[in-house]
Amino acid sequence: MSAASSDRARVAIIGASGYTGGELCRLLLGHPRALVTAVMAKRAAGQRIDEVFPHLRGLLTLQIEAFDADAVAARADVAFAALPHGESALVVAALRARGVITLDLSADFRLHDAAAWAAWYGSKEHPEHPAAALLAEAVYGIPERHRAALRGAGLVAVPGCYPTASILAIAPLLAAGLVSPEGLIIDAKSGASGAGRTPGLATHLPEAAEGVRAYKVGGAHRHTAEIEQELAIAARRDAGALAVTFTPHLLPMTRGILACVYAAPTDAARDAGAYREALVAAYAHEPFIDVLPAGALPDTAHVRGSNRVHVQAVYDARARRVLAIAALDNLVKGASGQAIQCLNAARGWPETLGLGAAPLFP
Amino acid sequence: MSAASSDRARVAIIGASGYTGGELCRLLLGHPRALVTAVMAKRAAGQRIDEVFPHLRGLLTLQIEAFDADAVAARADVAFAALPHGESALVVAALRARGVITLDLSADFRLHDAAAWAAWYGSKEHPEHPAAALLAEAVYGIPERHRAALRGAGLVAVPGCYPTASILAIAPLLAAGLVSPEGLIIDAKSGASGAGRTPGLATHLPEAAEGVRAYKVGGAHRHTAEIEQELAIAARRDAGALAVTFTPHLLPMTRGILACVYAAPTDAARDAGAYREALVAAYAHEPFIDVLPAGALPDTAHVRGSNRVHVQAVYDARARRVLAIAALDNLVKGASGQAIQCLNAARGWPETLGLGAAPLFP
Amino acid sequence: MSAASSDRARVAIIGASGYTGGELCRLLLGHPRALVTAVMAKRAAGQRIDEVFPHLRGLLTLQIEAFDADAVAARADVAFAALPHGESALVVAALRARGVITLDLSADFRLHDAAAWAAWYGSKEHPEHPAAALLAEAVYGIPERHRAALRGAGLVAVPGCYPTASILAIAPLLAAGLVSPEGLIIDAKSGASGAGRTPGLATHLPEAAEGVRAYKVGGAHRHTAEIEQELAIAARRDAGALAVTFTPHLLPMTRGILACVYAAPTDAARDAGAYREALVAAYAHEPFIDVLPAGALPDTAHVRGSNRVHVQAVYDARARRVLAIAALDNLVKGASGQAIQCLNAARGWPETLGLGAAPLFP
Amino acid sequence: MSAASSDRARVAIIGASGYTGGELCRLLLGHPRALVTAVMAKRAAGQRIDEVFPHLRGLLTLQIEAFDADAVAARADVAFAALPHGESALVVAALRARGVITLDLSADFRLHDAAAWAAWYGSKEHPEHPAAALLAEAVYGIPERHRAALRGAGLVAVPGCYPTASILAIAPLLAAGLVSPEGLIIDAKSGASGAGRTPGLATHLPEAAEGVRAYKVGGAHRHTAEIEQELAIAARRDAGALAVTFTPHLLPMTRGILACVYAAPTDAARDAGAYREALVAAYAHEPFIDVLPAGALPDTAHVRGSNRVHVQAVYDARARRVLAIAALDNLVKGASGQAIQCLNAARGWPETLGLGAAPLFP
Repeated sequence: MSAASSDRARVAIIGASGYTGGELCRLLLGHPRALVTAVMAKRAAGQRIDEVFPHLRGLLTLQIEAFDADAVAARADVAFAALPHGESALVVAALRARGVITLDLSADFRLHDAAAWAAWYGSKEHPEHPAAALLAEAVYGIPERHRAALRGAGLVAVPGCYPTASILAIAPLLAAGLVSPEGLIIDAKSGASGAGRTPGLATHLPEAAEGVRAYKVGGAHRHTAEIEQELAIAARRDAGALAVTFTPHLLPMTRGILACVYAAPTDAARDAGAYREALVAAYAHEPFIDVLPAGALPDTAHVRGSNRVHVQAVYDARARRVLAIAALDNLVKGASGQAIQCLNAARGWPETLGLGAAPLFP
Repeated sequence: MSAASSDRARVAIIGASGYTGGELCRLLLGHPRALVTAVMAKRAAGQRIDEVFPHLRGLLTLQIEAFDADAVAARADVAFAALPHGESALVVAALRARGVITLDLSADFRLHDAAAWAAWYGSKEHPEHPAAALLAEAVYGIPERHRAALRGAGLVAVPGCYPTASILAIAPLLAAGLVSPEGLIIDAKSGASGAGRTPGLATHLPEAAEGVRAYKVGGAHRHTAEIEQELAIAARRDAGALAVTFTPHLLPMTRGILACVYAAPTDAARDAGAYREALVAAYAHEPFIDVLPAGALPDTAHVRGSNRVHVQAVYDARARRVLAIAALDNLVKGASGQAIQCLNAARGWPETLGLGAAPLFP
Repeated sequence: MSAASSDRARVAIIGASGYTGGELCRLLLGHPRALVTAVMAKRAAGQRIDEVFPHLRGLLTLQIEAFDADAVAARADVAFAALPHGESALVVAALRARGVITLDLSADFRLHDAAAWAAWYGSKEHPEHPAAALLAEAVYGIPERHRAALRGAGLVAVPGCYPTASILAIAPLLAAGLVSPEGLIIDAKSGASGAGRTPGLATHLPEAAEGVRAYKVGGAHRHTAEIEQELAIAARRDAGALAVTFTPHLLPMTRGILACVYAAPTDAARDAGAYREALVAAYAHEPFIDVLPAGALPDTAHVRGSNRVHVQAVYDARARRVLAIAALDNLVKGASGQAIQCLNAARGWPETLGLGAAPLFP
Repeated sequence: MSAASSDRARVAIIGASGYTGGELCRLLLGHPRALVTAVMAKRAAGQRIDEVFPHLRGLLTLQIEAFDADAVAARADVAFAALPHGESALVVAALRARGVITLDLSADFRLHDAAAWAAWYGSKEHPEHPAAALLAEAVYGIPERHRAALRGAGLVAVPGCYPTASILAIAPLLAAGLVSPEGLIIDAKSGASGAGRTPGLATHLPEAAEGVRAYKVGGAHRHTAEIEQELAIAARRDAGALAVTFTPHLLPMTRGILACVYAAPTDAARDAGAYREALVAAYAHEPFIDVLPAGALPDTAHVRGSNRVHVQAVYDARARRVLAIAALDNLVKGASGQAIQCLNAARGWPETLGLGAAPLFP
C-alpha cells in the first residue's frame, strides 16, 4: 500500500453492480480518506468493475468477487451494502459480527420496530426480520436529522430516496409546529434510475420515454413506513400516530426526486414567509442544503450528480395550504452520496469529504 | 368545390401557427364533415402552413393569412380561435357578430363571471373583459359535463388541459357526494408542449430534458379559477365556495397531462371500490373515457395523440384519502381534440367524428 | 358479421404482442377495407390485446390466441406475420399452404437467394432456409420500387426499417446513374423501438436516455444483405456486385430512422441540384414520399406516427460527395404501415387506405 | 486572500453565462491550483452567477461584471474567453496586450491562416480577422496532438467539440499511414447543449425531444476547416490538400458527441486489428483517452460530465472500409474541460488537475 493511501479507510462495496454500487465507486474515487479495496456482487462476480460500468474504464479496474464476510473483514474497515432487503440483513449481520463498520443502503435497518419491518417487508422467505437484534444499534442515516447519533456509529441505515426528499422538505415545519402532522400528502416524482438496473417494461425506453404515471398508490409503497417514523419524531408524536398519503411517480428522466409535501398550517393567519424562514433556520449551517430565494422553485436538473438538496416552502393563502418542496439526486443524496456523508459523520470527518463536486448542469 | 366537400362545414383556424393550431390542422384533415378553408396567424402570415409545420407537408398547403373577420365569415362556417387571452375575446366578438360558430381555445369565455376574469386575467391593456356580453352565451366545452348545453351552441369556451384532466378525474366523485369539496389538492404534471411553441429557457432541451419542477404554485396558476368553477357546479356549491390547491409541474416529455386529485372521503367506512365505481357509472357511455380496471393506473403514454382519457380512483384506507387520477394528451383532449368534440356536439354529429384514431404507442 | 364489415378483408395478426403487432392493430383500426379478426402470440396468449397494449383500451378487445394455421385460414383472408426470422418462415409456409395472403415482416423472404439467407440468418436450429421453395414467390415489399410485382402477390416480404430508409434515399440516384454503386456508406440512426419490446440494458431508460452509440458495425448487421440486393437492382448490377458500409446507431428516442447515404458522384461537374431533381422525378407521384424543398433537411420528428417519408439529396462540391437522406417512422413506413401499403397494393386498393393520417407533431 | 488560495492562479471567465462558461465554473471549483476571481458577461452583468446557474448555488456567488480588460489584468493571471467568434478576437487581443494568459474557446485562433478565417468566418462586421497578428502565437489546444507547443503558451485556441472528437478518432490512423487522407467522411452526432444556451425552435423540447436531423450539410459547417487543417498535419499533407465530408446531426439528448469517421485503408490486406492497435499505441500514455477493448463501441453515456474520451477502430472487410469512432462530452473534453487541460499543459501542471472526476452514469 502506498504512503498516499496508508491513512485511508479501506472500503468494500457489496452489491457493486447496481446503480447505487456504481455511484459509490464513482464518488469514492474522489474521496481523500477512503480507498475502495473490494467490490462484490453475485451475478457479476468474475467480471471487472469497468466491464460492468464502462464509465469507470481507466479509473477503477477491480475484479468483482462473490460476497465473503471474512474477505471483507480482512481487507476493509468499512463496508457499503447495496443489496435487496432481506438479503441485506444477513450480510450486515455477518459484517457487524466481524466488526466492520457498515452502511446499509437497503431498508432492513431503517425501521426501528421489528414488527413494522415484518408488516412492510416480510416475505415468505423472511417473514420476520433476519437480524432484529441489530435494529437497536442502527442509526437512520440523514445527518441533517440524526447527526449526533451518527458520530461513532457502527451501523447506519441509509434512507431511501423518497424519504430523504420528503423528510428534508417538511420535517423542519413539523418540528417548528408550523404545520399539522395530520393529513400530510406527499406527491413525489422520480427518475427511472430509482427503479434500479434490472431492465423491465416499465423502464424500457420506448414505453417510458414519453409518459408519466403514478405507481404503488393508496398506501402501498414501503417507503411510507420510514417517512412516517421520521416525521413522527420531528413532530414529537408517538410512532404510528401519523399517517401520510404517499404517491410516487415514474418520470421520463434518469435521475432526480422532486417531493411536494402538502400540509395544513397550524395557524392560517401566520405570515406567508414563516414557512420558508423555518427552512432557513433549520438549514443555515448545512453544507448540502440550499433554501432557495423566495419565488424560486427546486428543479432536479439543478442538483443532478451532486449531494445537494434544493428546498422551498410556499403558503397558498386562498386554499390555506402549505407546500414544501425538495429536489435531490436519488442516486446521490438519495442513496450513495448520503451513505458517504454518513460515513464521514460517523468517522468525525468533514461531511463534505468526497462530496464537494458541483451538480452537472445542463 | 368538389362534390365530396360540398356538404362539409368550412373551417377557419385562427392562430394556426401554434401547437393547438397545428393540432387542429392535423385532426381536421381526418374529419369527414369538416374542411379547413382558411388558416390565419399574425407573424407567420405569408408562409405556407406546411412551412411552419413540416409534418403537414403533402397534406395541407394553405397559405397563412392575417386575421380578417370578414374573410372568415365569407369563407367559413366555423372558426377555431387558438389565441392568447384578451386578444382572443376581440377576435371572438368579431366572429360572433358575423354569425360564425366559434370554438375559442383561450381562457376568455371559460369563466362565467366577468369579475372573475378581471381578477385572474385582467392586464394593463385589458383590465376588464373585452367582450363580457358574450359570456352568457358561452358554453364550457367539456362534453362529458355540459353535453346538453353544447347542442346548438354558437360559442364554446374550450377548457385548458389541466382543468379537463382535473375535472374529469374528480367531478363524478363530488357529484356523487363521495368526497368532500373542502381541501381538494390537485398535483398535475404536464409535458412541455403545454407551454406553447415559443422557445424559452424553461423548455430549452438542455435545461428541461432531465429535470422536473413545479411552477406557479401557491394559487398562482390561472387555471385554478375554472377548475373551482366547474367543481363547484359538480358539488352543487355556490361559485366561489370551493378553493382547491393546484400545483402544476413541467416534465421532460412533449405531450401529456397526469392529474392526481387528493380528496377526503365523506364516509371513511365506505367500501374502497366505491370511488372507482362512481367513475364507471359516470363514464359508462362516454366514447373517449376509459375507467381502468382496478389495480391499473393511468399513464400518459397510453393516450398520446388521441382524444382518449384514462381515469382511476383509489382509496388509501391507512391515510383515509381518496386519489383520483386522469391521464390525457394536453394537445388533443386537453385542447384541439376536445374543441373538435365540442364542434361535433354543437352540430349534433357523432362526437367521435375525426377523433377515432387510436393513441400512438410507443 | 355486420353489413358494414361484410366487404372487409378479414385479417389475422401473428406476433401481435410486439411493437409491429401493436402498430398493425392501431393502423388497421382505421382501415376501411380490413377488419382484424384474430390476434395471435405465444407468451401473451390468453390475455386480451388491450391488456398487453393499454393504448388500445376501448378500441380493440380481442383475446390473444396461440398460433394455429387452420384457425387463421378459417377466420382470415390475410395474415400479417410479425415474428422472429426462422420462426416466421415456418408460420408463413403453413399459411401459404392454406391459401392465406401473407405479409411477412420478418427477414425470411427478403433475400431472393437461399444461400444468402443461410449465410446471414442461418442458425444452429435453422442452418438452411426453412421454406426456400417460397422465395421465388415472395415480393420485396417496397411499393415505390416493386409496385407491379406486388399487384396480386400472395406473399410479401416486408423490408426492415433501415433498408426502407436507405433504399428510398439512394436508389433513384443509382438508377439514374448519378452516383457510383462503389463505396456507398450508410450511416443510419434509429429510435429504440427498433430494438423491439423485450427489455434489455441497451434500451433501459437510465442507460439509453442520454447516450448515442453505434452497434453491429463493420458489416455485421444483417440488414446489409437486403440493402445490397435492392441497390444492386437499382444500379442494374449483378447481385453481390455491390458492397455497402452500413453503420446503425441507437438513439435516445422512441421512433424514427434517419438514414444518411454517402456516395461518389459519377460526374463531379454536374449541377449540384441534379441529385435532388432525380428524387423529385422518382417520387413525383408517390403519395407517401416528400422530397423536401432545397435547403430543408429531413427530421424524424416530422414523420412520426405516419407512413410518410421525407427525403433530400445534397452535393458537397468541396469534397465531391453526394449525401442522400431519408427520414421515416421505423414502426410505420419501416414496418407495419408499409406492410399495410403492400396489402393495399396487392389487392389493388388505393395504397393510402388506412394510412392517410398526418404525422403526430410535436 | 487565504493561505490556501495564495498559490493559486487567479482566473477570469469571460462569457460566463453560456454553457461553456458555466462548465468552466463547475470544473474550476474543483481545481486545486486555480481560483475563479472574476466572471464576466454582457447581458447577465449585475446578476450573481448562481442566479444565472442555479446549480452553482452555495458553491459560487460571484457577481457577474461587464468585460473590462484592465479589470481582468488586475485581478487574474489567466482568462478563459467563451465568446462568439469575431467578438472573441478583440477581447483576446486586449487581454494578450496586458499579458494575460488566454484560453480562447471561440474559433478565432484555431485556423493558422487569416485568409481561411476570412473565408469561413468573415462577416459584414468583421470581413477580415480582427487580430491576425496573434495567429502565429496561438496553439491549437488538443494536448494529445500539440502537447509540446502548449508548454508555456500564452494563447491557446481551444478547439470545437466536433473537431476534437473527429481528430482524436482518425488522426493516429492517418499519422500511421493506415488510412488514406482522401475521401474521409465524418458523420457526427451531437447533444443539444452544443447549440448553446440561447433558446430556439431547433432546441425547443417539444420539437427536439423525439427527432434527429442533420444540419449544415454539404460542407457548410465551419468546423470543417479546423478538422481539415489538423488532419492534414497528421497526414503530413499541405494545408488545404485534404477535403473531408462533414455531416453534423442534432440528437435528442443534452451532452455528448459521437464522431464516426469513415476512411479507405491504404492496404486492404492488412490485419483487421491494426487500426485499433494504432489507437492503442497513440494513446497508451494519455490520461483521458481509453481505447475500448476489441468488440466494445463508444457510447456518449459513458463519458458524460467528464474529460474522458472513448475511441475504437473497426475494419469492415466486406466493404474495405475503416471506421474510427470517438465519444466525448461536448462541454467538457469538447470545450471547457479541454480548455482546463490546456491550461494545465501550458503551466506545466499535471494535465489531470481539476479533471479527475469520473463520468456521471447513468
